[in-house]
Amino acid sequence: MNYRMKIQYDGTRYKGWQRQGGVSGSDATIQGKMEAVLSRYVGKEIQIDGAGRTDAGVHAMEQIANVHVPENVSGTPEELKEYINEYLPEDIRVTAVERAGERFHSRLNAIGKRYEYHIMKATSENVFQRKYAWKVLGILNTEQMRIAADFLVGKHDFRSFCSKASKKKSTVRTIRSITFKETEQDLVICFEGDGFLYNMVRILVGTLVEVGLGKRQPEEMLEILERKERKYAGETAPAQGLFLAKVYYD
Amino acid sequence: MNYRMKIQYDGTRYKGWQRQGGVSGSDATIQGKMEAVLSRYVGKEIQIDGAGRTDAGVHAMEQIANVHVPENVSGTPEELKEYINEYLPEDIRVTAVERAGERFHSRLNAIGKRYEYHIMKATSENVFQRKYAWKVLGILNTEQMRIAADFLVGKHDFRSFCSKASKKKSTVRTIRSITFKETEQDLVICFEGDGFLYNMVRILVGTLVEVGLGKRQPEEMLEILERKERKYAGETAPAQGLFLAKVYYD
Repeated sequence: MNYRMKIQYDGTRYKGWQRQGGVSGSDATIQGKMEAVLSRYVGKEIQIDGAGRTDAGVHAMEQIANVHVPENVSGTPEELKEYINEYLPEDIRVTAVERAGERFHSRLNAIGKRYEYHIMKATSENVFQRKYAWKVLGILNTEQMRIAADFLVGKHDFRSFCSKASKKKSTVRTIRSITFKETEQDLVICFEGDGFLYNMVRILVGTLVEVGLGKRQPEEMLEILERKERKYAGETAPAQGLFLAKVYYD
Repeated sequence: MNYRMKIQYDGTRYKGWQRQGGVSGSDATIQGKMEAVLSRYVGKEIQIDGAGRTDAGVHAMEQIANVHVPENVSGTPEELKEYINEYLPEDIRVTAVERAGERFHSRLNAIGKRYEYHIMKATSENVFQRKYAWKVLGILNTEQMRIAADFLVGKHDFRSFCSKASKKKSTVRTIRSITFKETEQDLVICFEGDGFLYNMVRILVGTLVEVGLGKRQPEEMLEILERKERKYAGETAPAQGLFLAKVYYD
């Protein structure tokens, strides 16, 4: 039986989603923690696949994963959810479990994702957001950031916005939208696209912030895309402001 | 020179606002941490007074404090703020500093306070709220809670809603309003009043939640008030859901 799960986590303590050792090593990764609990439930080593391989320190409001549980292991989706949450640390929660078709694969079937990046403005203080936002020192011109973002929307080769890009694999992706939610206290930038390269959202944010601070012009985005080299883009924004917000399927 | 400050803190790690040892002991209290930094700034032991003596684990969105700094210590309010924030742990932030009249006292001059209590509904999961809300297991009838709350608004002897009430000191207080902010995920109860007794908001919340769960009737609030004994009220709600939100002055 293939189960599809929604998972929420505070990534602060973790080395990201992806397990680094063998199955059930229960290392400091979300996947490792999930597999340790699931293996205990099933009685043998079991693997879980997640849609987004979030980096160390990155959070998820809604990660999607799937896991194949042997038929002889009984239990309703609700029972599975309760069992997992009982043994998971409190900074990882399974918020929903449902049966999925046998061929459903959380990552391979995903047709898009939404990431949100939270920036706390220099003029505001919020101790409750300190682990969940990047505090940018300096006044941001968000109008300039919006203009720059418009250059990035669409189908492009985002090689310049990728850490450790492979020479063989395609770095072409489509960003469907970049939207801004601004309050007096903070700025949230939402990215929707078919997929994102390693560190891509964080480099996009770092570059947009440099535009907001007046260090770059919005039009430079075109040049950065054309150069196809990481060094032309801006700094990688800190992991703690990034949230995997939604995974889309057909 | 008397300075008035706004302070925000995540109370999770602390034994409350009030210092437990001597001045500058820098114990695990907010006051202790503040005084350690201020004493370093001034070059001698210095005391800070806070408007609300929040309990262990209780948070503050806006605590007000005042501190008398010797005249020979120079610096603008902004410099003082920056200095303090540099040396404070990151879960305590001074969000504003301004000069106040010599006779201003943060606690004695306060004419009212607002506390907010955050409840996470049983049907919702939010890892990011896990330290900042009480997760109540069970479905809450908030309509019944509102009816009960209306019995509590006004000038009453709240002795039943106070831990360790003194026999000599008055336990009469005026609650100006109790309001509810409800979303699909959570319920926030806001209390405004001229002052609150030890554990009063948490006992009020614990009692209102018992009403919401159907364990008590709204009309029982009158009887609890009349009994004037702690044992007639409900359980004390956990500290982690409580926030000092605002202190009022003339």
